[in-house]
Amino acid sequence: YPKLHKYIIAPYDRRYRWWQLFLVILVIYSAWASPFELAFKNVASGSLLVIDSIVDAIFAVDIVMTFFVAYLDKSTYLLVDEHKKIAIRYVSRIWFTMDVASTVPFQSIYRIFTGKKHGGDVFGFLNFLRLWRLRRVSNLFARLEKDTRFSYFWTRYCKLICVTLFAVHSAGCFYFWMATNYRIKKNTWIGSQIDNFESRSIWLGYTYAMYWSITTLTTVGYGDLHAENTGEKLFNMFFMLFNIGLTAYLIGNMTNLVVHSATRTFAMRDTINEVSRYASKNRLPESLKEQIMAHLQLKFKTVELQQDEVIADLPKAIRSSISQHLFQRTVETAYLFKGVSQDLIIQMVSEMKAEYFPPKVDIVLQNEIPTDFYIIASGAVDLLTYRNGTEQVLSKLGRADMAGEIGVLFNIPQPFTVRSKKLCQVIRISHWNFKQIIQPHDSDGQIIITNFLQV
Amino acid sequence: YPKLHKYIIAPYDRRYRWWQLFLVILVIYSAWASPFELAFKNVASGSLLVIDSIVDAIFAVDIVMTFFVAYLDKSTYLLVDEHKKIAIRYVSRIWFTMDVASTVPFQSIYRIFTGKKHGGDVFGFLNFLRLWRLRRVSNLFARLEKDTRFSYFWTRYCKLICVTLFAVHSAGCFYFWMATNYRIKKNTWIGSQIDNFESRSIWLGYTYAMYWSITTLTTVGYGDLHAENTGEKLFNMFFMLFNIGLTAYLIGNMTNLVVHSATRTFAMRDTINEVSRYASKNRLPESLKEQIMAHLQLKFKTVELQQDEVIADLPKAIRSSISQHLFQRTVETAYLFKGVSQDLIIQMVSEMKAEYFPPKVDIVLQNEIPTDFYIIASGAVDLLTYRNGTEQVLSKLGRADMAGEIGVLFNIPQPFTVRSKKLCQVIRISHWNFKQIIQPHDSDGQIIITNFLQV
Amino acid sequence: YPKLHKYIIAPYDRRYRWWQLFLVILVIYSAWASPFELAFKNVASGSLLVIDSIVDAIFAVDIVMTFFVAYLDKSTYLLVDEHKKIAIRYVSRIWFTMDVASTVPFQSIYRIFTGKKHGGDVFGFLNFLRLWRLRRVSNLFARLEKDTRFSYFWTRYCKLICVTLFAVHSAGCFYFWMATNYRIKKNTWIGSQIDNFESRSIWLGYTYAMYWSITTLTTVGYGDLHAENTGEKLFNMFFMLFNIGLTAYLIGNMTNLVVHSATRTFAMRDTINEVSRYASKNRLPESLKEQIMAHLQLKFKTVELQQDEVIADLPKAIRSSISQHLFQRTVETAYLFKGVSQDLIIQMVSEMKAEYFPPKVDIVLQNEIPTDFYIIASGAVDLLTYRNGTEQVLSKLGRADMAGEIGVLFNIPQPFTVRSKKLCQVIRISHWNFKQIIQPHDSDGQIIITNFLQV
Amino acid sequence: YPKLHKYIIAPYDRRYRWWQLFLVILVIYSAWASPFELAFKNVASGSLLVIDSIVDAIFAVDIVMTFFVAYLDKSTYLLVDEHKKIAIRYVSRIWFTMDVASTVPFQSIYRIFTGKKHGGDVFGFLNFLRLWRLRRVSNLFARLEKDTRFSYFWTRYCKLICVTLFAVHSAGCFYFWMATNYRIKKNTWIGSQIDNFESRSIWLGYTYAMYWSITTLTTVGYGDLHAENTGEKLFNMFFMLFNIGLTAYLIGNMTNLVVHSATRTFAMRDTINEVSRYASKNRLPESLKEQIMAHLQLKFKTVELQQDEVIADLPKAIRSSISQHLFQRTVETAYLFKGVSQDLIIQMVSEMKAEYFPPKVDIVLQNEIPTDFYIIASGAVDLLTYRNGTEQVLSKLGRADMAGEIGVLFNIPQPFTVRSKKLCQVIRISHWNFKQIIQPHDSDGQIIITNFLQV
Repeated sequence: YPKLHKYIIAPYDRRYRWWQLFLVILVIYSAWASPFELAFKNVASGSLLVIDSIVDAIFAVDIVMTFFVAYLDKSTYLLVDEHKKIAIRYVSRIWFTMDVASTVPFQSIYRIFTGKKHGGDVFGFLNFLRLWRLRRVSNLFARLEKDTRFSYFWTRYCKLICVTLFAVHSAGCFYFWMATNYRIKKNTWIGSQIDNFESRSIWLGYTYAMYWSITTLTTVGYGDLHAENTGEKLFNMFFMLFNIGLTAYLIGNMTNLVVHSATRTFAMRDTINEVSRYASKNRLPESLKEQIMAHLQLKFKTVELQQDEVIADLPKAIRSSISQHLFQRTVETAYLFKGVSQDLIIQMVSEMKAEYFPPKVDIVLQNEIPTDFYIIASGAVDLLTYRNGTEQVLSKLGRADMAGEIGVLFNIPQPFTVRSKKLCQVIRISHWNFKQIIQPHDSDGQIIITNFLQV
Repeated sequence: YPKLHKYIIAPYDRRYRWWQLFLVILVIYSAWASPFELAFKNVASGSLLVIDSIVDAIFAVDIVMTFFVAYLDKSTYLLVDEHKKIAIRYVSRIWFTMDVASTVPFQSIYRIFTGKKHGGDVFGFLNFLRLWRLRRVSNLFARLEKDTRFSYFWTRYCKLICVTLFAVHSAGCFYFWMATNYRIKKNTWIGSQIDNFESRSIWLGYTYAMYWSITTLTTVGYGDLHAENTGEKLFNMFFMLFNIGLTAYLIGNMTNLVVHSATRTFAMRDTINEVSRYASKNRLPESLKEQIMAHLQLKFKTVELQQDEVIADLPKAIRSSISQHLFQRTVETAYLFKGVSQDLIIQMVSEMKAEYFPPKVDIVLQNEIPTDFYIIASGAVDLLTYRNGTEQVLSKLGRADMAGEIGVLFNIPQPFTVRSKKLCQVIRISHWNFKQIIQPHDSDGQIIITNFLQV
Repeated sequence: YPKLHKYIIAPYDRRYRWWQLFLVILVIYSAWASPFELAFKNVASGSLLVIDSIVDAIFAVDIVMTFFVAYLDKSTYLLVDEHKKIAIRYVSRIWFTMDVASTVPFQSIYRIFTGKKHGGDVFGFLNFLRLWRLRRVSNLFARLEKDTRFSYFWTRYCKLICVTLFAVHSAGCFYFWMATNYRIKKNTWIGSQIDNFESRSIWLGYTYAMYWSITTLTTVGYGDLHAENTGEKLFNMFFMLFNIGLTAYLIGNMTNLVVHSATRTFAMRDTINEVSRYASKNRLPESLKEQIMAHLQLKFKTVELQQDEVIADLPKAIRSSISQHLFQRTVETAYLFKGVSQDLIIQMVSEMKAEYFPPKVDIVLQNEIPTDFYIIASGAVDLLTYRNGTEQVLSKLGRADMAGEIGVLFNIPQPFTVRSKKLCQVIRISHWNFKQIIQPHDSDGQIIITNFLQV
Repeated sequence: YPKLHKYIIAPYDRRYRWWQLFLVILVIYSAWASPFELAFKNVASGSLLVIDSIVDAIFAVDIVMTFFVAYLDKSTYLLVDEHKKIAIRYVSRIWFTMDVASTVPFQSIYRIFTGKKHGGDVFGFLNFLRLWRLRRVSNLFARLEKDTRFSYFWTRYCKLICVTLFAVHSAGCFYFWMATNYRIKKNTWIGSQIDNFESRSIWLGYTYAMYWSITTLTTVGYGDLHAENTGEKLFNMFFMLFNIGLTAYLIGNMTNLVVHSATRTFAMRDTINEVSRYASKNRLPESLKEQIMAHLQLKFKTVELQQDEVIADLPKAIRSSISQHLFQRTVETAYLFKGVSQDLIIQMVSEMKAEYFPPKVDIVLQNEIPTDFYIIASGAVDLLTYRNGTEQVLSKLGRADMAGEIGVLFNIPQPFTVRSKKLCQVIRISHWNFKQIIQPHDSDGQIIITNFLQV
């Protein structure tokens, strides 16, 4: 990381990140407190006022701090750490104004100037300015969704739960506020159930409000609490319409997650089903069908080891490095390439591919055209030949042995069948690539021929 | 644009477009007013009648105007601007009849002829002819959905909200109309709650109707307002069945939008996860893993700069123009191509590709087979060589320098490793393409060799 | 179609198909009548009994008829028309037993044998055997879904509506039957609302039953009608659980249809958005950007004319026939191919591709490597050259003229820029294909050269 | 399978699998009994106690048994069968502790030590430890979902039903327990409906509890049973919020299944629609359009026979074996390859592809460039030639006859049109592959020429 001016904090500073995370927790408190204090004014001007003041103070500190935090220029991708530029950028945007407006303790100022305790509902609504802080939570989730260290499912799930709870809480508190402000208490949703609901405990009122709100959101709608007057009916209508949107959004997200998580299982099942139907429709012999199935099952088990498509998109130098790391040691120990120059091995290795074979599967068929040869990286294979109609095992090959190289070197049909004995990892290089690489290396070609003849 | 006959308006005329947009607003008014006037007849024959007459007059103007608007022939793709053809086309279709029928002010005509004010419900239902105008809104949305200047999400969202509100409003008004027309007022959904609901304010009635309608649509179903007589039960049944369809349609659309918006994030996350799992399962060294991750992250950041697949579908001449614009200046400044003919540069440029490398990533590996060479468009790279097992920095290359050209020109393994120092943009051309292009240009080949030897 | 045995009807016979369609209508009647007759026994033994008997008689005729309808053998794909085989196949399956069981008029038989009119609920339940006939409707929908002459959307939509209505109707009727069979009428869902509900009109009872059933299915649940005794609660529970499944199925299907219908719009919008972002990020000049956009918009407009991917999957002979139909006449009129043998034209034509260019787009760029040449099928293009930095129009080409052929014939960089004047359709053949085809035709090669020199 | 130590059971042992399946049934009983016994304490300490004890005993046996079951090492993929290792692995994990804790019969122990029968609710809650056993059901479903022998749809469906029923049952029982524990019975959800609900039958209480629970889950919410006190309201809220998640999950899964099942139908319909639109927009002649449609329909009918993409991913030796099985006998009987060496046939066969043609479709067109030749595996074709503008049938070919081989052998335009007479299966080999294979086999080439000349 580059060095910054004095008294300037880098945005990726670990301590600054923790500070930001701490602020997010305070934001969640603000999001809960703002609607709550509107509904239950006694609490707002009582015990919660102290906490609110502390929270506001901390956010005031953050506003000051922002003048000392470097920022990333979007067009040059560079970190700007000049005091003046940082200040201009922050002040000239709407952020600064909103940050300040959401931090000023209007109620306390009013009390200091007028000496009165209650200032009416206007302060309750001014509190909603604090919801501006919610953009921090929104930013956090946007960042987490792109961070592969966290599960997308749970990040998204958390976000949806937060959104739902906030909607439910706000609606409940607002609905309660409506009841307290209605003239005839008997004609309110809660007043028609409980007499003197205002003098009862906050806990009871909050439970009723949340119960109504959740009953409506989930569309259960028991009907034990329902709108009594026109104002309540109106708010109810808006809330219900909003809820269709929210519910559809929840279902849409859940469907998205379910569909995505099932993609791999479907791909696996579909492939196996198609192959198995192909085999039975074409009446393939049972032994061949078993080979195919064993191969497919192994393929899906080792799918994380074989990301050919993803690797193919990487730049060539990185791919070569991967190949060298994976295959170089095995290739160097193969008898054919003993004493061969390092250049040749590096070039060959970068064209090689790993393949996995389950037990009892044919890797090379006798008499087939030679297109590839194989080095056995792990496991064991049998060399077989058909004589007078019966299979005869010629020899057994193990780690670092080679298979199919005779066909490739002399360009003749493969003289043997090669069949895996147990789970094998083999390294494959194609006839054509091998020829291309070997051509300019005369001396290495000689060494390979000598190696071959000595065996 | 071609010139049109006198007194003929082109359909793409800016002023005509604004007129059409203005009509859409009036259509929305009509859609709201038609059901409303059925339910609340006093308003229909009172204050709203004036507005209705004005709106009808404006639509009458539009009918006349349509005779002067050219149209696009669907088979020849040409604009037809002959008065006669336009008139025949308009009159011979159902559109004209419906446009006229939806504009005639039946109620006013009736009043003029009979002198009576109320004409019964028949006029309320005749008003529904005006809903024919809704096809204008439907056409507008169909056009907006295909217009990439507008967000698909919000266009679709707006459409769904409009459809929902219209359904809710129509059902509510119709339900109220049913109550007013039922013999025993006590046995209606609203009469059982409010006495003399017909003599109460329109505002109250409308709120009750909408409240019932939204409660039913959202399936909350509190039960405080419910069908009392058989007729109401019947209508309720149809409305509820219609609502399943509407709700399913809303959820289906929301799911579609959510799934589509998440596609890119999923693609990014899946790729990174797969590669990271591949790296750890194959126990790749940490430094290589970091190179891969840095490359992937850069790739997703610069994805908008590298739309290879989309560009590949464009015609060849456009692709060449893009390449020339992007690469020509950089290639001309490369030392190897100084003094080379313009033809050769144009041809080379059209086969080039831009690539981005994050810092500390290998672009070329020592000893690998030369397949491409690179011109550095921005950033800086190091030339490294391995001697006695340690890396030595030979030199540093910057803008317009070339890398890997020695291997390509002499077809030998790359003599140096090339590694990026910071974020680099490099232009790549393949060995094979370069050879193909240079072959017929003998003199240019000479210049390149001379350039190479002079350095 | 092959000829069949005497007295054997082919399953694809038009009259037989109409008969089957007519039966489907009767099946729908049965599906409605079976639950209805259980709930309202008076009707079942009254007016509906006649209709039921007629319907049963018609299905009895169909059973007999089935013995004379040939069937398709699933393994040989041949039509079997032997009386014996048809009979064995039909009788040996469960179909025959069920067909007969669902046709026997148990109630009438009982009345004939015992002389009594009512036989208790057992006949109501025996009626449910008729629901076996529903498999005909299910088969019909399965066939319609695969028939491209019918919209998938509406077929699916109809099916879902049918399923929903049947579920709602059955549940409602069964619920009414429960009420009529409960000892204490006051303690039933309907009895607690209406006294003597059994002596009231069928119409009223049916409306109440359907109202309850739809209120529950849609989860509106007003609560004005609800389960009163344990039996009703139990049935209600099963119905509600079934409804979650049904609702999820409805939403799933709707989502599927919405997602599918939006695929094309999304593909179009995404491509245009990506290209436009690519152009602005890479700061491509405005004129080039307009060319790209014009090309993309034309491409999406003419997408139905250019189904390259689908056509590529057809067998070679069909593809050749399509090419001949589309291009042969244009190629024959091109000056270069006058007098050339029919063989050559046929071979060239099968390698050609049509392309569309919007106005003012470059088709060939001056100095680019010749890879294709073009025959103009419709529209007009300009030949341009750059001299002293300014564009000069050399000539204008129209239908059957050729562009880019000089570069291809002499393998030199294109001497001119070719730019479309209006919407053009051009036929393209690649350099490489042209050479391959012309090689063995010496005399045709001579004619082409002569044609070229004469111009 | 490898041999294991004495007294060690293999996890894939058939009898052990049945034992595990038997345990799953007991788990389902436990899942039902745990909440039930909390709500209805009399049953728990009565008749169910015996069953509970037996079930606990069986699970105790399974704990002991686990010490004798070999396990699969995740990193080496080997079966570990050493007593010590198995024991250490089991005991050192949380599994063992939880297994034991969920099996100890706390209530019986308490009774033995204190002599009292009831131990309060604490034992009801301790019973919930048994729900730990549910992981067995979860594992079973995870395994079934990957097993292609079972339908994914029904497996998933079953799982969703199980989850839903368990949620509904637990919530109902807990809700009933809340009512029994509330001081003022009149103020509980059930007490306000039924007096002395505790002394009524368990059956009645359970029905009411389940009825409430399902009414809430499905969001029907009739309102006849609803929360009366604050505690009930709180639990209701949690249950409703949980239900949104569950419902969204149900819908998401259903959508996933519906979308997946429709994929194939959509692919088929879209292809046919696109081709048919292409044909009509390009005004292709009716006969050609019919050929295309016949081909497409046949293709979708035989899609299970032609899994080219899936087969292409199999290793080369398996693909060769499949080709040999499918084509070898047909190729050996073709006149051209009589007497040819086995090697050649094996090599040719591995490059062959099967294709299906509907009746009256052109396989080869006269004068087209020869790219493939065909061996007819089944069906019949006509050889046609155009003379003086009319088609003449030259001959008819059947099984094992060849078509198009003259063009390929002499590299001349095809002399005849080949058209299918009925449904044909033909085997195709490309010109290029045939040449590659035949080149090194001089003697076989001679035989083929001789065979050709003899005909």
